[in-house]
Amino acid sequence: MSNSIKLAILGLGTVGTGVINLINDNLDELKRRSGRNIIITEVGTRRQRDDIDPDIIQNSDLMAIAASENVDIVIEVIGGTTLAKDVIMHAIKNGKHVVTANKALLAEYGNEIFAFAEANNVHVAYEAAVAGGIPIIKVMREALAANKIDWLAGIINGTGNFIMTEMRDKGRPFADVLNEAQELGYAEADPTFDVEGIDAAHKLALLASIAFGIPLQFDKVYCEGITGITLQDVNYAEELGYRIKHLGFAVRRDGQGDNNAAGIELRVHPTLIPQDALLANVNGVKNAVLVNSHPLGQTLYCGDGAGAGATASAVMADVMDLVRVLGSTDNDDQSSNNENNHGHHVPHLAFIPEQLSDTPILRAEQMTTGYYLRVHANDNPGVLADITRILSDAGINIDAILQKPAHKVGQVPVIILTLPVVESQMNLAIEKIEKLDTITDKVVRIRLDELA
Amino acid sequence: MSNSIKLAILGLGTVGTGVINLINDNLDELKRRSGRNIIITEVGTRRQRDDIDPDIIQNSDLMAIAASENVDIVIEVIGGTTLAKDVIMHAIKNGKHVVTANKALLAEYGNEIFAFAEANNVHVAYEAAVAGGIPIIKVMREALAANKIDWLAGIINGTGNFIMTEMRDKGRPFADVLNEAQELGYAEADPTFDVEGIDAAHKLALLASIAFGIPLQFDKVYCEGITGITLQDVNYAEELGYRIKHLGFAVRRDGQGDNNAAGIELRVHPTLIPQDALLANVNGVKNAVLVNSHPLGQTLYCGDGAGAGATASAVMADVMDLVRVLGSTDNDDQSSNNENNHGHHVPHLAFIPEQLSDTPILRAEQMTTGYYLRVHANDNPGVLADITRILSDAGINIDAILQKPAHKVGQVPVIILTLPVVESQMNLAIEKIEKLDTITDKVVRIRLDELA
Repeated sequence: MSNSIKLAILGLGTVGTGVINLINDNLDELKRRSGRNIIITEVGTRRQRDDIDPDIIQNSDLMAIAASENVDIVIEVIGGTTLAKDVIMHAIKNGKHVVTANKALLAEYGNEIFAFAEANNVHVAYEAAVAGGIPIIKVMREALAANKIDWLAGIINGTGNFIMTEMRDKGRPFADVLNEAQELGYAEADPTFDVEGIDAAHKLALLASIAFGIPLQFDKVYCEGITGITLQDVNYAEELGYRIKHLGFAVRRDGQGDNNAAGIELRVHPTLIPQDALLANVNGVKNAVLVNSHPLGQTLYCGDGAGAGATASAVMADVMDLVRVLGSTDNDDQSSNNENNHGHHVPHLAFIPEQLSDTPILRAEQMTTGYYLRVHANDNPGVLADITRILSDAGINIDAILQKPAHKVGQVPVIILTLPVVESQMNLAIEKIEKLDTITDKVVRIRLDELA
Repeated sequence: MSNSIKLAILGLGTVGTGVINLINDNLDELKRRSGRNIIITEVGTRRQRDDIDPDIIQNSDLMAIAASENVDIVIEVIGGTTLAKDVIMHAIKNGKHVVTANKALLAEYGNEIFAFAEANNVHVAYEAAVAGGIPIIKVMREALAANKIDWLAGIINGTGNFIMTEMRDKGRPFADVLNEAQELGYAEADPTFDVEGIDAAHKLALLASIAFGIPLQFDKVYCEGITGITLQDVNYAEELGYRIKHLGFAVRRDGQGDNNAAGIELRVHPTLIPQDALLANVNGVKNAVLVNSHPLGQTLYCGDGAGAGATASAVMADVMDLVRVLGSTDNDDQSSNNENNHGHHVPHLAFIPEQLSDTPILRAEQMTTGYYLRVHANDNPGVLADITRILSDAGINIDAILQKPAHKVGQVPVIILTLPVVESQMNLAIEKIEKLDTITDKVVRIRLDELA
């Protein structure tokens, strides 16, 4: 094997350029750590670029690069789920290791892609696909490998966190902050993926698989965005000692207790969490993931979830791992045909493929969370008694109540925080509350988690 | 190779027992992730234990276990730097991989131990030696492998952080909290290692080596404890928007600017950091490490820095990594004799041994930090002018001044925060200030870092 590791970078946008810059800036560091030379041999770009080292071959034919004998590792940073998929599958077929930052592609087609990689004895590495520069994939796959993971909660979309931070810190309404985020380049012209939680759901699907050893099931992630969050709720939450963050949760439920189903909750939604939790103090475009596992307990990982530098850092961390694989004799090792010999690499989804579990993903109405309820009622002395009786009859425990002075004549919002309850129970209770004569509006509900 | 990985645990104290419990609790998880069976074959214990699985051989002769053919990986959790060293060297000589939680041993003898391991083609893994269950060793060695690390700052001693947290939250004096920490088992009967920063210095030496690619140099770590921190200073710091934490810093200086020497600062000391920094909000016995690297920027890692579960988690993460090494054919690979072939494993100190750098470690007087100064003066109108002139003449920039009402008749403390300055300059300035007629006491100084 040659002493140089030959990389191809497909796509020269922000991330691809970031990878080139990282290699230029830190080549000495990369060599001192790996003992190998790392060179970019080919780049895939639609238009010829004159700011690229002339020794690097520029090619608009990505499929040709994916099959090139001049390439050990293919870095896919073009994005999208069509061409990117074709190119990755072609690279795998041609025995190339792949590094990708493409969360949407993996969340939707990861099971197929990883199986194809296993069959072709190559690795598809994807640290950059979740939480940017935070090494949460490596942490979950390797550092927590001896733990049983109970749940994780993550701020895994920087745009959403920027919006929630600005709303809270500066008292600015959602639409106003979204505009600024778009001007700053934090949010796309079409912000749906970010503000509706779809991007977070892609990442959550990946995190949940490596946490619990389940196949990727993006289509089963329950997803609520932040477009409905008002300043009023942000402020009531603060008053009660909570902060609203847009979080992704993956939770293992053992089915103990009444009405509780066994299975896994995969959900993205605005959530009240205690103000003094570190996660509540992760602000701006920062990402963070909190993992609760046995026997380790809670650990938190925080950093930049996007941007050229953070993403390039994650991409090249994967490359450095693959350099070790390329330095070993895996491919020639006869014993690797032994069906029980999984020792050579970390499995793509952290658990060996034949050990992935069919634990069911719970439906929304089976999920258990606490709730923040905002109920608008006529200023009727009996209304609080009616509401609390309905909740009590449904077996829902109230943790706190805040009744504020009327902001409209004759109306007062009542804020209620509940202990965890199965959603179907809460649905029934809210239906009853909304039927009360004294209730004037739909009940606003936001989930709540103590992160305990 | 057998399908089972055979472990020996040397030492059945809190950590050793924690490892046994982890394997009992999570064996299914370990198998599903590694595809291998993991069994404890031997344990080293002075007295025979009847609460241990009878299939496990108990032996008080640790050297015999270290050489046993019945063992693939030796887990050293006896602590100390004498017997532990002999046993580890014997295990290495006998071709065993070693996992250790022994920060004191590695900080003092790591260069020798790692070199011996390299020579014998085995690995000595030590995730549990720094920050307990936080995977900071893996993160720095692998996840940040493509970054150039500029500096790191860590809360890496839980006892010290517990004391600083209680002092601030509850207004309790140092001695009082230390007593409680001892009763709770957080602090040893002789608390010197914790409160004087020696334990933190051990860990910092390890972190600095893998951050910068330098040999272990524990003897060059500058170390200040927290025994001199008073409630008065805790409260003044809070008033100015800062919090005092006991931190370890490893900082690379490029020698730019006046009076600045090129080299690495290794220092453990109480430090004022901004109240709103996440690191300032890591409380109680929790540990956290903040790493600033290029191009990633700042990332933070937080969790339990001690305890049976957290330490066992780290020990077994190392075992899971070694399971992959044992599953490959490293030892039989002819190409591993190639001097440039370092591809098979992460080097012990993150950089390949021949690439470790001789960058000098700076002496205390060469280090650059901001300062908090508390100056007690007679209530003389000219005193502030005198002090600020001395600082200004020494080229020291003042960031904030707080002059509080007299707490003794005729005396007022003046609190001054400075921008970063080389310590030798500050020493001269303080010498001059203390010579002023109006100054009644020694100047109290605590370092300050904006973590920017």
